[in-house]
Amino acid sequence: MLGSTHGTLTSGLRARVVACGEHPLRGADAVHDTASVVASDGDTDVSGRLLYAPVPDLDRFFRPSSVAVIGASDTEGRPNTGITRQLVAWAGRVGARLHPVHPSRTEVFGIPCVPRIGSVPEPVDLAVLLVGDPLPLIDELADAKVKFAVAFAAGYAETGEDGAAAQSRLAAAVERAGIRLLGPNTNLNAFEEFRDDLDGPAIALITQSGHQGRPLFTLQELGIRLSHWAPTGNEADLETSDFISYFAERPEVGAIACYVEGLKDGRAFLLAADRAARRGVPVVAVKVGRTETGARTAASHTGKLTGADRVVDSAMRQFGVIRVDGLDELQDTSALLARARPPLADGVVVYSISGGTGAHFADLATAAGLKLPGLSTAKQTELHQWIPADLSVANPVDNGGHPVGDWRGRKIIDAILADPDVGVLICPITGPFPPMSDRLAQDLVDAAERTDKLVCVVWGSPVGTEAAYRETLLGSARVATFRTFANCITAVRAYLGHHRFTAGYLSPFDEAPRTPSPSFRKAQALLRPGSRLSEHGAKQLLRAYGIRVPREQLVTSAAAAVRAAGLVGYPVVMKASGSLLAHKTELGLVKIGLTSASQVRDAYRELTEIARCEGTDLDGILVCQMVERGVEMVVGVTQDALFGPTVTVGLGGILVEVLRDTAVRVPPFGEGQARAMLGELRGRALLDGVRGGPPLDVDALVEVILRVQRMALELGDELSELDINPLMVLPRGQGAVALDALAVCR
Amino acid sequence: MLGSTHGTLTSGLRARVVACGEHPLRGADAVHDTASVVASDGDTDVSGRLLYAPVPDLDRFFRPSSVAVIGASDTEGRPNTGITRQLVAWAGRVGARLHPVHPSRTEVFGIPCVPRIGSVPEPVDLAVLLVGDPLPLIDELADAKVKFAVAFAAGYAETGEDGAAAQSRLAAAVERAGIRLLGPNTNLNAFEEFRDDLDGPAIALITQSGHQGRPLFTLQELGIRLSHWAPTGNEADLETSDFISYFAERPEVGAIACYVEGLKDGRAFLLAADRAARRGVPVVAVKVGRTETGARTAASHTGKLTGADRVVDSAMRQFGVIRVDGLDELQDTSALLARARPPLADGVVVYSISGGTGAHFADLATAAGLKLPGLSTAKQTELHQWIPADLSVANPVDNGGHPVGDWRGRKIIDAILADPDVGVLICPITGPFPPMSDRLAQDLVDAAERTDKLVCVVWGSPVGTEAAYRETLLGSARVATFRTFANCITAVRAYLGHHRFTAGYLSPFDEAPRTPSPSFRKAQALLRPGSRLSEHGAKQLLRAYGIRVPREQLVTSAAAAVRAAGLVGYPVVMKASGSLLAHKTELGLVKIGLTSASQVRDAYRELTEIARCEGTDLDGILVCQMVERGVEMVVGVTQDALFGPTVTVGLGGILVEVLRDTAVRVPPFGEGQARAMLGELRGRALLDGVRGGPPLDVDALVEVILRVQRMALELGDELSELDINPLMVLPRGQGAVALDALAVCR
Repeated sequence: MLGSTHGTLTSGLRARVVACGEHPLRGADAVHDTASVVASDGDTDVSGRLLYAPVPDLDRFFRPSSVAVIGASDTEGRPNTGITRQLVAWAGRVGARLHPVHPSRTEVFGIPCVPRIGSVPEPVDLAVLLVGDPLPLIDELADAKVKFAVAFAAGYAETGEDGAAAQSRLAAAVERAGIRLLGPNTNLNAFEEFRDDLDGPAIALITQSGHQGRPLFTLQELGIRLSHWAPTGNEADLETSDFISYFAERPEVGAIACYVEGLKDGRAFLLAADRAARRGVPVVAVKVGRTETGARTAASHTGKLTGADRVVDSAMRQFGVIRVDGLDELQDTSALLARARPPLADGVVVYSISGGTGAHFADLATAAGLKLPGLSTAKQTELHQWIPADLSVANPVDNGGHPVGDWRGRKIIDAILADPDVGVLICPITGPFPPMSDRLAQDLVDAAERTDKLVCVVWGSPVGTEAAYRETLLGSARVATFRTFANCITAVRAYLGHHRFTAGYLSPFDEAPRTPSPSFRKAQALLRPGSRLSEHGAKQLLRAYGIRVPREQLVTSAAAAVRAAGLVGYPVVMKASGSLLAHKTELGLVKIGLTSASQVRDAYRELTEIARCEGTDLDGILVCQMVERGVEMVVGVTQDALFGPTVTVGLGGILVEVLRDTAVRVPPFGEGQARAMLGELRGRALLDGVRGGPPLDVDALVEVILRVQRMALELGDELSELDINPLMVLPRGQGAVALDALAVCR
Repeated sequence: MLGSTHGTLTSGLRARVVACGEHPLRGADAVHDTASVVASDGDTDVSGRLLYAPVPDLDRFFRPSSVAVIGASDTEGRPNTGITRQLVAWAGRVGARLHPVHPSRTEVFGIPCVPRIGSVPEPVDLAVLLVGDPLPLIDELADAKVKFAVAFAAGYAETGEDGAAAQSRLAAAVERAGIRLLGPNTNLNAFEEFRDDLDGPAIALITQSGHQGRPLFTLQELGIRLSHWAPTGNEADLETSDFISYFAERPEVGAIACYVEGLKDGRAFLLAADRAARRGVPVVAVKVGRTETGARTAASHTGKLTGADRVVDSAMRQFGVIRVDGLDELQDTSALLARARPPLADGVVVYSISGGTGAHFADLATAAGLKLPGLSTAKQTELHQWIPADLSVANPVDNGGHPVGDWRGRKIIDAILADPDVGVLICPITGPFPPMSDRLAQDLVDAAERTDKLVCVVWGSPVGTEAAYRETLLGSARVATFRTFANCITAVRAYLGHHRFTAGYLSPFDEAPRTPSPSFRKAQALLRPGSRLSEHGAKQLLRAYGIRVPREQLVTSAAAAVRAAGLVGYPVVMKASGSLLAHKTELGLVKIGLTSASQVRDAYRELTEIARCEGTDLDGILVCQMVERGVEMVVGVTQDALFGPTVTVGLGGILVEVLRDTAVRVPPFGEGQARAMLGELRGRALLDGVRGGPPLDVDALVEVILRVQRMALELGDELSELDINPLMVLPRGQGAVALDALAVCR
């Protein structure tokens, strides 16, 4: 969809020249308007979930004309006094009129004070509530037509059930009142002093904890522009997703950096990420919850669930959100993505004054998946004009040090950047060695000014007070400067990945089904609310959605079994079928490879006998076609607390039981994501055929995944679990067959 | 072995008080002397490999009395002039007399110059060779009884075959001459100016590339002491291992930091690492070669093979070498390990002014395997004296910010450190917020002075020029200061891991067999040099080493097969056996589950028929006992270019074929490492029993691994490959049986 704007990394970008200074992600042909034709406010998919989330208009929150401070104080020693002072200063900077509100003061810091919000002599855009319990104020705010409120008070969902109930009451009150609320349990970060002397695309920051945003804010001292800081706290109303949506539409925002402990609404997050992806605006996020400890601690901090981490992780990848682990990675990655122009090629060249540094960086970079194309013989010959012949310049380019001390240094850099396969030049300077490193830094800055390609420098000195770093490198907005190899590699990988992703992005919301399929009606008749379906029942459900199951018949006598075997065709498999049966194989309730009527009769007797001994209620015995010579997979639907029904695929048998080798996606997703799921499986190679066997029918497997997704969308809220295990994927061209299935209705 | 000195983390350490300032790893009862009773120079194990490597006496290299500079110059503009100037300055600092040597000069920088090394008026400890080709000088150096030489010249192994040959000639010449040589292709890093005003244990640095050591060297500007820098270059003679051995014996060295591109001699490295492990001296290393690109580039830099990365990686872990990826990690980890006293407990408490920071740090720390014990109710009550009741202080401890601004801050820190389960307190300060962060930094520094426990601070500000960081935190040698969460976690994990490892360390060289086992003679008779053994032959080899194989007989007629089946016991398996047979199953040359004489006769005919059609030469048909109900593993011996025979264990079938789920060890290793191998398998849980099955006989599996190790030691150089596949591991108490095996003799 963005193809016309960006081309792709492998074709269009290379030929395309981006004018200096133009921010290419803000072209007039951005797809947002197109998309909003497809879905608009109120539109839902077949599951009833929204396909469109409106963008809250937060202009008046960040740049209000008038601000009321309820509970304002100028009495030294009171906590509200420091806050009021900061708000007065902030209001001055953003050009807002500030109105102190206090029942018993006539002025605060020399500004006339009114007793109640209703007495403010003009409409109030933003009310800052410096009170212990904001709830009783909400009606008054509504009467005064206040647009936005901020509540600092703590003691809500982060403290447990009572607090969560209080938070719900507050949320309900502001919703009734039509006021958008930031908080509670938030802080002053939105009202900090931002540097206004920095140019270029900015980082917009969203944090669920103030202290966690501090290093990002401090980036301004290194010349990185920051436009906004939204400290969302407990998110009784306004949440991370609202700010992502808003920032994605702001022309000055080049990247959105988030610190997230928990998501309030999974769907809202996906829609916000989708909006950013359509607009080509990168979202970089730290998301707590990789471990139980992290999840638990986060919950006790802002009272939010972190969500099942692997589902959150997959959802982020589906919508191009770049997840990082550390705040340092958040800084470096969002700064690069905000400021760097789109890549003209995806080849990375490592250039260094030391063969060791080049080898080490190349090792880490290729391990992380960056492509380091070998330079052409012609290019190497060109570089050897300036670099001694015994040094390797294939990529990494090792100049041996000396050439950076004279005119040759610039020639080398320019020659590398002129290579059409090169999109990124990375120069790791591990430590300060002024005779070399200072001139090298200046040459790189100068070269970066003359090129549209990305120039990255790693200034590896642990000291970091050197002039070459502080003045030369940080003084340039065109060079991306890092302090560690790892963060440079993480950021460059994210940068190339982001542009590749957005260039090929098709919003799954545009394609999501709005009306039930013909399968749906058939399937509904098969559901048994509150029950578990028998194997036979679950397979009928699959059949309704066009998923192939073996030829099979459910029989209740030995004679019928023999007839069924004749119809199904020998050899057959016989299994006990009943809604409460599990672990059939372990109980001996499966007989395979039966080749004659007498074997079928014996098997029938044996199976019913075992079932009787086990006290198991059967709805009959299944006589099934025997399917062999494939690879067993599992495909299923599981419920996620944050996102609802999700689709899982994995390798069957031991692989899924012991290694949990599965991939998950949150609907809606397209065929590309279904294929990407398979790519995530460690045992993926099994699908290419093992021990000289034929490659398997991956297309059929993908089709099953998509049909199961359709089931998840249409039946997901009525099924607590659906599990095809195994799905036998046959050799290419022969399809895939669901050999067993489990379905539990809600 | 070090138990008496260190205790263990779980028992002794907690009760032990380390006197401030004492470096506990240098006690008089260090085990080195004991160990050298066990093995001494010239001792070898049964494979002929050394059990002891002498420590080169490098005192006169690093602190020579006299230095000769051959090719000295003071003519401006010549490269040798700068080098000579640096050597003159360095000689002055270390108190060495410097003698310029040049055929046509009478003085250099005012120092009398002699024409040849033989004319130097005193014995020469160290000769620095500033000549293009040092080879012709070596005899002259020998005549002058020079102890050490340094060669800067390049153009050796790093340039290809001719260069490698020249390097071999140089190496042979210095060996003949009894001179220890550093280089060629090295540089001046050994002669840098080290700060001598820093106290406490130092980092000793070894790098195969000068630029890669620069950031470590620069650490001195942050107050971290560096004692030595050995830039080993091409290692024609002196290698990384020599310096590790030497530094491990130096009292001032607290940790050894290495940048390694390739190892010259695998065994020498293991012996050096073993020495460091016995002495309790941590070795931290960056080792290039995770990828093909890295390995290739490293080879073109210093002409060394990087070695199979997973084998190197395992070898490092076996001997406690801490491998890190980045130079920043190398700095932070070696600085912590050099300076921190041994832990008094392994519990880590995260303390922060923000619940978000605590949650985030705890999430990353637990994901990395650090233990964050919950604080006791009593301790929490104590902390709540100073911290508001609604904040969580279970661990992480969130103080909400305000208490750090007054007297409560110190109380909280002291109370946490007083907890006996706490060995490490980590305080992440994500960004500067002077009203809180400055006083917090000072309180942490003060607390660290009063405790024997480890206090770590993460100063997360990207700026790093703040006084709280530069003066307060870096001014303290007792606080370990980091810049990122990730590096703090990596270093603390390495710190706890190192002390746990050395506390329990038993050198495998002390236990390594020196004489052949009785099995060896039996096995030798079975080897067929240059050939591959048949399945039957390979199994006899296993049997010689006490590894169980199924009851089986090799037969050459159908009648004999039936007799054999009777002896072996039904059901039986029959397989074609021949030295050139592979993929027997795929060819249909295996019949399982035969239960009668007639089935055995049919199978015999069918197998010989297939073999005839395939044109395969058989030595007969194996009639084997059928073994079921276990888990299939593989155990084998493979050859590594750097380390020789290695032992591999993996999960059989699909797991090893598709996922390559294996673990490897370099002999010699003990039972603990054999068990650790199993712990590295992703499918480890299979050994605990699957689908309700019984747990498997892990002890028997470990015993097989150790017996295969014995084979690797005794036969490893005569076998190019040994592969037990599958080894059926039976339920606990029932042993493990090698169902098939492959052996290829050299």
